[in-house]
Amino acid sequence: MDVLTLFGVMVALGAIIGGNILEGGHTSSLVQLTAFVIVVGGTLGAVMVQTPFNVFMRASKMILWIVMPPKIEGEETVNKIIEWSKISRKEGLLGLEDIAEQEPDPFSSKCLRLLVDGSDPEAIRKIMEVELGNDEHRDLMAAKVYESAGGYSPTIGIIGAVMGLIHVMQNLKDPSMLGSGIAVAFVATIYGVGAANLLLLPIANKLKAVIGRRVQYHEMILDGITAIAEGENPRTIENKLLAYMP
Amino acid sequence: MDVLTLFGVMVALGAIIGGNILEGGHTSSLVQLTAFVIVVGGTLGAVMVQTPFNVFMRASKMILWIVMPPKIEGEETVNKIIEWSKISRKEGLLGLEDIAEQEPDPFSSKCLRLLVDGSDPEAIRKIMEVELGNDEHRDLMAAKVYESAGGYSPTIGIIGAVMGLIHVMQNLKDPSMLGSGIAVAFVATIYGVGAANLLLLPIANKLKAVIGRRVQYHEMILDGITAIAEGENPRTIENKLLAYMP
Amino acid sequence: MDVLTLFGVMVALGAIIGGNILEGGHTSSLVQLTAFVIVVGGTLGAVMVQTPFNVFMRASKMILWIVMPPKIEGEETVNKIIEWSKISRKEGLLGLEDIAEQEPDPFSSKCLRLLVDGSDPEAIRKIMEVELGNDEHRDLMAAKVYESAGGYSPTIGIIGAVMGLIHVMQNLKDPSMLGSGIAVAFVATIYGVGAANLLLLPIANKLKAVIGRRVQYHEMILDGITAIAEGENPRTIENKLLAYMP
Amino acid sequence: MDVLTLFGVMVALGAIIGGNILEGGHTSSLVQLTAFVIVVGGTLGAVMVQTPFNVFMRASKMILWIVMPPKIEGEETVNKIIEWSKISRKEGLLGLEDIAEQEPDPFSSKCLRLLVDGSDPEAIRKIMEVELGNDEHRDLMAAKVYESAGGYSPTIGIIGAVMGLIHVMQNLKDPSMLGSGIAVAFVATIYGVGAANLLLLPIANKLKAVIGRRVQYHEMILDGITAIAEGENPRTIENKLLAYMP
Amino acid sequence: MDVLTLFGVMVALGAIIGGNILEGGHTSSLVQLTAFVIVVGGTLGAVMVQTPFNVFMRASKMILWIVMPPKIEGEETVNKIIEWSKISRKEGLLGLEDIAEQEPDPFSSKCLRLLVDGSDPEAIRKIMEVELGNDEHRDLMAAKVYESAGGYSPTIGIIGAVMGLIHVMQNLKDPSMLGSGIAVAFVATIYGVGAANLLLLPIANKLKAVIGRRVQYHEMILDGITAIAEGENPRTIENKLLAYMP
Repeated sequence: MDVLTLFGVMVALGAIIGGNILEGGHTSSLVQLTAFVIVVGGTLGAVMVQTPFNVFMRASKMILWIVMPPKIEGEETVNKIIEWSKISRKEGLLGLEDIAEQEPDPFSSKCLRLLVDGSDPEAIRKIMEVELGNDEHRDLMAAKVYESAGGYSPTIGIIGAVMGLIHVMQNLKDPSMLGSGIAVAFVATIYGVGAANLLLLPIANKLKAVIGRRVQYHEMILDGITAIAEGENPRTIENKLLAYMP
Repeated sequence: MDVLTLFGVMVALGAIIGGNILEGGHTSSLVQLTAFVIVVGGTLGAVMVQTPFNVFMRASKMILWIVMPPKIEGEETVNKIIEWSKISRKEGLLGLEDIAEQEPDPFSSKCLRLLVDGSDPEAIRKIMEVELGNDEHRDLMAAKVYESAGGYSPTIGIIGAVMGLIHVMQNLKDPSMLGSGIAVAFVATIYGVGAANLLLLPIANKLKAVIGRRVQYHEMILDGITAIAEGENPRTIENKLLAYMP
Repeated sequence: MDVLTLFGVMVALGAIIGGNILEGGHTSSLVQLTAFVIVVGGTLGAVMVQTPFNVFMRASKMILWIVMPPKIEGEETVNKIIEWSKISRKEGLLGLEDIAEQEPDPFSSKCLRLLVDGSDPEAIRKIMEVELGNDEHRDLMAAKVYESAGGYSPTIGIIGAVMGLIHVMQNLKDPSMLGSGIAVAFVATIYGVGAANLLLLPIANKLKAVIGRRVQYHEMILDGITAIAEGENPRTIENKLLAYMP
Repeated sequence: MDVLTLFGVMVALGAIIGGNILEGGHTSSLVQLTAFVIVVGGTLGAVMVQTPFNVFMRASKMILWIVMPPKIEGEETVNKIIEWSKISRKEGLLGLEDIAEQEPDPFSSKCLRLLVDGSDPEAIRKIMEVELGNDEHRDLMAAKVYESAGGYSPTIGIIGAVMGLIHVMQNLKDPSMLGSGIAVAFVATIYGVGAANLLLLPIANKLKAVIGRRVQYHEMILDGITAIAEGENPRTIENKLLAYMP
Repeated sequence: MDVLTLFGVMVALGAIIGGNILEGGHTSSLVQLTAFVIVVGGTLGAVMVQTPFNVFMRASKMILWIVMPPKIEGEETVNKIIEWSKISRKEGLLGLEDIAEQEPDPFSSKCLRLLVDGSDPEAIRKIMEVELGNDEHRDLMAAKVYESAGGYSPTIGIIGAVMGLIHVMQNLKDPSMLGSGIAVAFVATIYGVGAANLLLLPIANKLKAVIGRRVQYHEMILDGITAIAEGENPRTIENKLLAYMP
């Protein structure tokens, strides 16, 4: 569980709201339904237009990854792969059949099943690289939903602000309304810019970092499995895999 | 049929118009012919200057893809290719001649015809990759028409706004006109920014996602056909193709 | 001749000027010498600083391509290449000697001369790919002159506007001048943004599209000539080349 | 120790503060707690949301590199590698065993140990390139923390400014507060833009330059070690390595 | 000597100053020490923070290249290389020993010395490509110093403008100062934007063009030398090298 992300959200919101209080402003002046409807609705709508349905669903689920990224057990996995290589040397590839069935990680499990099937190393690499590439592409598409939202929200905030200013301009005869009208208009800008810079873009970047690390982890597993298929000795495999460790 | 896109358009427009009503504005204040002429005409003109005629026509037709993307029948196609590989093992490649004639998808059909002609796997791959690359390039060119339009429309909206402000400034002597004049000028900004962020850029991104998925689908077909040409067994082909499935 | 480009210029200018008239503005208020001098002179100067002399000259000449792109005779050229492959099968490569001399397209002619000289396919490909890469690089450099100009002109328009505002600010005592002074200042913005978005960037993008298509066309020719050099049969060559057709 | 960086910070701050004094402003008018809280807190929060914990820690430590970059001893290392190649020719690879143990640079030491183990050149290259790639990726991730911060801080400065303006607008009745209120609001912009352009982005770029140079240095070492493994003569190795020298 | 660059600087400055005069402004109103200190000092400081010392020195020297680019003698060099290939055919590679010593261009000279040493073509190519890559990287790093400066200066101009506006706002009680105060503030914007768009970015782009052309020229030399090492006949070498000519 990655608490830095949650902590970051609190720091950012605390700075904005605390800064407003320090300046003598009322927090209530930052809360406004109209601006919220325009920015959230407009951004959501723009994202819905551009996103295929399954990508949209995956993006909704992937948001959890920012606090609970999928498990990456680097050293543990290195040890497991070395163990597998020893078994395959002693008992042959078929000795890994039960392990392939019980392996909980679907990527490792699929690699192992190809290995047990007796596929040659080149074939395992090719098939799993297609899988890896498609997994990465699908996950990056989902992460880019947040990036796109972070691209749209500031400009939609500006639409909200300009609409507010139009409203103000049409009621210029009542100057007492001027200031507060403009104030209200500006809140849409804050929502748009704030949503992008304090939430959407950081979320997108966090997801990309998580995806990148996961791809690297799967590449390590694939390297290990093909090394087993090539019959390399456990010592060499260990050397290879430790190069992936930070 | 991808309803999320249509739904997204409604959400986005609903948020903007609803937000305006919430704020006490008249929807009519967002409707203005001059701004519409400037933004739509200017953007359309800029796009016409830069786009070769055939790309312009393809872009006009491709707009339908955002709600009706070309069919991608992943699993069905995997089954069809495995079926073809079995036929080619039993009856030889010529057994696929009738199937090649009747295959409705032009890409698959062309692959099959090259296969039946007895082209070697490397030749099939080379020829079809040229075709695939050119198809992708042509479609991306068409999608970029919308992306370019989304790049031009906000700045053309600003041209409209500045022209409106010039008009206002020249009539400063009549202050009663000031507010509504500026209001009118701002509508051009909303049209330009809104067209880009709620329609043009999301459409371009949706088209790119559709194109990307289609290219991947065709790559899968090509992988399957070359595997048949190499005489691989149906089990291996299935393993290969399933790696493309999400 | 590509009329869409000329038509696009008219649509864009018509929208801007028509929009101004609709709004009740005088077209004359959009015509201003000072702004023109600043934007055109500044942009031209910036481009001159950055562009080597021969690239600058090529860019000046290449502007014609936006309405008269170099001829791309796809199908006709496929037929010619197939014809050549038949001649080379009947009469040997020397049978192409006269054709090489008379071929009007310099790229095809150079390929043919290398073929007649008896260069091996790999050598032809290597030499002509260097030529192709250098041609593309040189043309893209020239197209980027317009892209750069489109990057500079909006900010130089802003320089003009700010200079105008400075002038206005120094004469604040005479408020009757205020409005029209600001109006004049804003025209520079319109010139800068308009030149970029309605002319310079679309021209650059059009040139890039033309260049891209021409490179693809030359790649097709090169593929055909190397296939002749490899002695492939006309049927296979036709299959290869048709993959380039849209 | 790279003093240019420290000197640069002083030049930049001196120019800003000196400029303010020249203009007759009080330096105190540039010091403001609220703006500081909003910009620093908001930027820090956004960065925390997006950065995995270990990357965040590495970025905190890497900041020292901008004045004390890791040692790159080009010529000295070339001489050392040539020395090693001579030893390996005289005493065999095992003659390098003690040197591998004592080598202080971890990258060189790891390369040497693989060499002494008798790994073939291709294996050394593969393993160390994975290590090199992962090192570079990890360091660039850390450098991008500053780049991201430099992307967020200006927009968060704008949030601070807009919040200040809202506050001003709500107190329009007291015009005597107007000017100083706006002045305070603008300080947030200066903090955001200044932090990005005078500190965060230059730091990120400096770190990237340091990382790039270090990667190149490690590539040189790896090239030398694999050349030793291939048994090349010291003269050829020297030629190879000197090509890396500036 | 490339006069277009100098001419461009004059055109750009002439347009700005001439435009100001046309508008009835005093040239003196564009001259202001404070703005100059802030923009030049701030930009220089930011660049110093990010640039390693040797890159900074190289960038300072490379500025001369914009009017006096390093000599590229295309045709002359082609003739020289063909001459060398003839000598090597008649007298063997050792016949080039004196020529290698006397060759003034360091890149050609180094290639020739490797050739005379009897290195095989693949080794010459590998060593010189490392050299070429490092040269290009080092020069691009230096050119990017100007690009970065062009990225920083507009925003630092904005810092100057905002600081000016703060100063104005704090002295609102004296409205007679208002206009000229704002005017002074705006000059910083003009300096920042002008420095970037009329000098720094065009200089960076010019340097990149010069570097690109030089790399291409060195690639041609390297291609020629490796062709000599491979013992190709002068006719073939000429064909190869002429493909590099524009």
